[in-house]
Amino acid sequence: MTKLLVLYNTPADTAAFDRYYGETHIPIANRIPRLRSYTVSKGSVTALAGTAPYLVAELTFDSMADLNAALASPEGKAAADDVPNFATGGVTLLTYDTKKV
Amino acid sequence: MTKLLVLYNTPADTAAFDRYYGETHIPIANRIPRLRSYTVSKGSVTALAGTAPYLVAELTFDSMADLNAALASPEGKAAADDVPNFATGGVTLLTYDTKKV
Repeated sequence: MTKLLVLYNTPADTAAFDRYYGETHIPIANRIPRLRSYTVSKGSVTALAGTAPYLVAELTFDSMADLNAALASPEGKAAADDVPNFATGGVTLLTYDTKKV
Repeated sequence: MTKLLVLYNTPADTAAFDRYYGETHIPIANRIPRLRSYTVSKGSVTALAGTAPYLVAELTFDSMADLNAALASPEGKAAADDVPNFATGGVTLLTYDTKKV
């Protein structure tokens, strides 16, 4: 499985972030082709070490080829282009393949 | 579902990290009670925004209560105590509940 992990730093206005993310960004991101699952953190994220992001989003794909095709699609570009509209605290966006251990 | 997400920064000696993580830490962490799944990044992690960690590990539990019980167990404490033995680059350790969106 391949993951697109998005860690959002705490935004300037958390209420505005929550509203925009839920009402606008999730519907846009859910249109991404080849997307297998999309989960987000529910409630606060706790850091036992390091710094906690405000929100963690995880999008999974069957393969890195699927993820790359997804990001290159018009829907993927629309989702990426939407991030600066609400991620006022900055964002870390990671892609990687995974293995069960 | 509840997640324990571990982002390891690049260690001083990646070959030593890989060896210790695979041969020693994975077996220790796999003894954690109530653990539902344990996956790690395979190959390099790419940052499309922000800074890439060296390795991402994801441990899932049925609930935050299970995760807290797991961390409080002798096996959970052994896994946590083992981290400084190899995570020479530092680590971010996050816990959160998730929801499908």
